[in-house]
Amino acid sequence: MKHALRGIKALTFDVFGTVVDWRGSIIAEGRKLGRKKRLAVDWVAFADAWRAGYRPAMDRVRRGDLPWTVIDDLHRMILDELLVRFRIGGLTDSEKSHFNLAWHRLGPWKDSVPGLKRLKKRHVIATLSNGNVALLTNMAKHGGLPWDCILSAELFGHYKPDAETYLGAARLLRLQPEEVMMVAAHKSDLDAAARSGLRTAFVARPMERGDPAKADLAPEARFDVNAKDFVDLARQLGC
Amino acid sequence: MKHALRGIKALTFDVFGTVVDWRGSIIAEGRKLGRKKRLAVDWVAFADAWRAGYRPAMDRVRRGDLPWTVIDDLHRMILDELLVRFRIGGLTDSEKSHFNLAWHRLGPWKDSVPGLKRLKKRHVIATLSNGNVALLTNMAKHGGLPWDCILSAELFGHYKPDAETYLGAARLLRLQPEEVMMVAAHKSDLDAAARSGLRTAFVARPMERGDPAKADLAPEARFDVNAKDFVDLARQLGC
Repeated sequence: MKHALRGIKALTFDVFGTVVDWRGSIIAEGRKLGRKKRLAVDWVAFADAWRAGYRPAMDRVRRGDLPWTVIDDLHRMILDELLVRFRIGGLTDSEKSHFNLAWHRLGPWKDSVPGLKRLKKRHVIATLSNGNVALLTNMAKHGGLPWDCILSAELFGHYKPDAETYLGAARLLRLQPEEVMMVAAHKSDLDAAARSGLRTAFVARPMERGDPAKADLAPEARFDVNAKDFVDLARQLGC
Repeated sequence: MKHALRGIKALTFDVFGTVVDWRGSIIAEGRKLGRKKRLAVDWVAFADAWRAGYRPAMDRVRRGDLPWTVIDDLHRMILDELLVRFRIGGLTDSEKSHFNLAWHRLGPWKDSVPGLKRLKKRHVIATLSNGNVALLTNMAKHGGLPWDCILSAELFGHYKPDAETYLGAARLLRLQPEEVMMVAAHKSDLDAAARSGLRTAFVARPMERGDPAKADLAPEARFDVNAKDFVDLARQLGC
């Protein structure tokens, strides 16, 4: 193990894409709804469109064009637009609410739970996601994710990649930034964490967008760790 | 089960005294330190004095006489006074810091973990403590407390019994106050939760102060549940 990794006390995890397979889960939830309501919808395109709306919606909050709004409500705003765009009618309000909460029921990648259980033995493991607290809490219950602590952008009133999120996580854990390692499948998240002084671990998630050709999977020397999955990360951290 | 209890989705727990035996744990940590450093100290009196300093210190924060200060730092302020009062010398700064973190290592009552595991099957279970996030996170790891979510006064910048804490917990969980049940061994905590619209469960902890005669153990009709311990609470909630 590299010397710089010996002082790591907590690991904070990006969640959407890094811990859970948002795309496969949303497609499955869409198909289930489609069967129930006899809808002819391209759920793959629908899932990608729902996710594509997420970053622009958060950026409206980050720029101050929208007041602080949690992801549950941003997801619902996007959903309401997509129901029109995809010509999906006939859903009750309760069906829309339930479908919106599909983001609370995303399933973990197959190495996520075994890897987290190993990592948890020697480190504090926490979420550090733009998902709101209730979403992350319900998702953990649904998928058996053994977090020690749920940390969320919601607690800081700032979305990643704002520095307030990474520094806020270190502050709440009563650790120095260099004692915290950010784990993510997205390089921009890790680069922002590193600018705040956190250590970084890149985990390749080739199927996040359904096709390895759509993902940036190359290891980078600037990250403290480059791992194939969470079990590999645990091995590299000596867990 | 009473009708009013059917809509409960989350249980929020007071921690010091309700989930963990702060007094027995602090006495044991004091005795351990005393053996190591050959100190002749009445650790029972010391533990009671440390805890007695806690409410006045928090009240200074609540009144605005002190800026927001987390419990770890309030515990350290009180500890530094007590080391003088109990004539305890010769501790290194590292020994003082380690002793101060005894509050991160408090042990659960024997029914706490089995009761929480049962309650967790049907409800979200979260802390709602004046302890800071790191303290509660480390304590859960140390004692095997299976929380779904760590909620703390620190997240709201207000100490219990301020309403911001109870309402803040419901907000983060995306629940109505009446869908949340506060669980505590202290009636004042439950009465404050009820004023914010939460449901209430009183759990008797006869040994919190080392002597059942020092505890107010009487069930009260104004609480939604009165329980002997967490296993009894799980039974009464149909878990």
